[in-house]
Amino acid sequence: MSDALRLHFAPDNASLIVRLVLEELGQPYETVLVDRAARAQDGAAYRAINPAGLIPALETPQGPIFETAAILLWLADRHGRLAPRPDSPQRGRFLSWLFFTSNTLHAYLRVLFYPDRYAADAGALHKRLRIHLALLDAEAANGPDWLSPDAPSVLTWYLACLLRWMALYPKAGNRDWFALADTPQLQRIFVALEARPPTRAAITAEGLGPRPFTAPVHPTPPEGSAT
Amino acid sequence: MSDALRLHFAPDNASLIVRLVLEELGQPYETVLVDRAARAQDGAAYRAINPAGLIPALETPQGPIFETAAILLWLADRHGRLAPRPDSPQRGRFLSWLFFTSNTLHAYLRVLFYPDRYAADAGALHKRLRIHLALLDAEAANGPDWLSPDAPSVLTWYLACLLRWMALYPKAGNRDWFALADTPQLQRIFVALEARPPTRAAITAEGLGPRPFTAPVHPTPPEGSAT
Repeated sequence: MSDALRLHFAPDNASLIVRLVLEELGQPYETVLVDRAARAQDGAAYRAINPAGLIPALETPQGPIFETAAILLWLADRHGRLAPRPDSPQRGRFLSWLFFTSNTLHAYLRVLFYPDRYAADAGALHKRLRIHLALLDAEAANGPDWLSPDAPSVLTWYLACLLRWMALYPKAGNRDWFALADTPQLQRIFVALEARPPTRAAITAEGLGPRPFTAPVHPTPPEGSAT
Repeated sequence: MSDALRLHFAPDNASLIVRLVLEELGQPYETVLVDRAARAQDGAAYRAINPAGLIPALETPQGPIFETAAILLWLADRHGRLAPRPDSPQRGRFLSWLFFTSNTLHAYLRVLFYPDRYAADAGALHKRLRIHLALLDAEAANGPDWLSPDAPSVLTWYLACLLRWMALYPKAGNRDWFALADTPQLQRIFVALEARPPTRAAITAEGLGPRPFTAPVHPTPPEGSAT
């Protein structure tokens, strides 16, 4: 693949944020217009670049990157500008607000702009979560270093806990939509994770039982649901 | 402040993910139980640590960090383990899925577990967005290097575009809830941002008009709404 960066964009879409930063960095890039009218972002060609089917995506010599904030952080770190560097004392605070902007401000805006697509009733949420879990399981099937049974990353524990909570909560609600066995790659990874002594120390500290990810039970003492 | 890390936690809450990673890293830490029954996370003392009032937060010698994924990434980078390093060819892919997990999987789970708190009707969304914008404006008032008129970071453009879209979209909906003047610090920052030549190049490329952040108009040619 060439060294050029290729931004998949639509005017005044989230890709605009990436374009602004590419310009500021003086980073050469090409653009590829995504035909939103034809919903090209849902097609197989685009989903090979961004499995979530959203704009933007950035093709790089190291493969495609998606998620607006991920692209921004990656570009800033690559250039050593426009974000506190990893060893800066301001890095933690910056990351806090970057994730807040992504998962709260931006996420709510999505719901506000596309209420039909992001309906918040339980049935619609279950359906979307199942799609997203399938995407993650497919990524795990590729066996990247950061999502494999042999080498956990911080994302491994993050996912393990989220899927634990899907199995357990809400206590009074329907949880039949979820079964860990539907994501066999993740299941295999979580089995390996549960065996790690540091993980056992943490789950003992919070009274979570012997198999908190693959056969979860409510904690003792109970503390209500998570997130 | 001491060198110790202090994790504000509640059992089986999102803080569990951070605890698991702290254990895996062999990183010494103290824990502080957040009294959820008394909603201590809403109190002034806790909000001084995490303005968003959510669990977890991690106090560090460099100040408090919040947002689960931000804490995870900061810890991994600090230890050089449990995530591809900033210069790794796998970094971009890892960040893509980390942000996806945070802003999609985790965000939907929040709505599923707390439907009352995260109601998705427009009125409730407007109210929450106004609260979050006020938090960001307060952060900008502190004048950190990464959110000031003099030195933009990637987050500056991210916020500038999100607030642009709040002013413009949805076209048919009520937008009276939003006024840039309500966040004067951000407004001041965006005025400075609009004057930068690279930003002008990007906004010309997408036909956004002369003041896309502080006096936004719909793009020419129009392309529908953002995010």
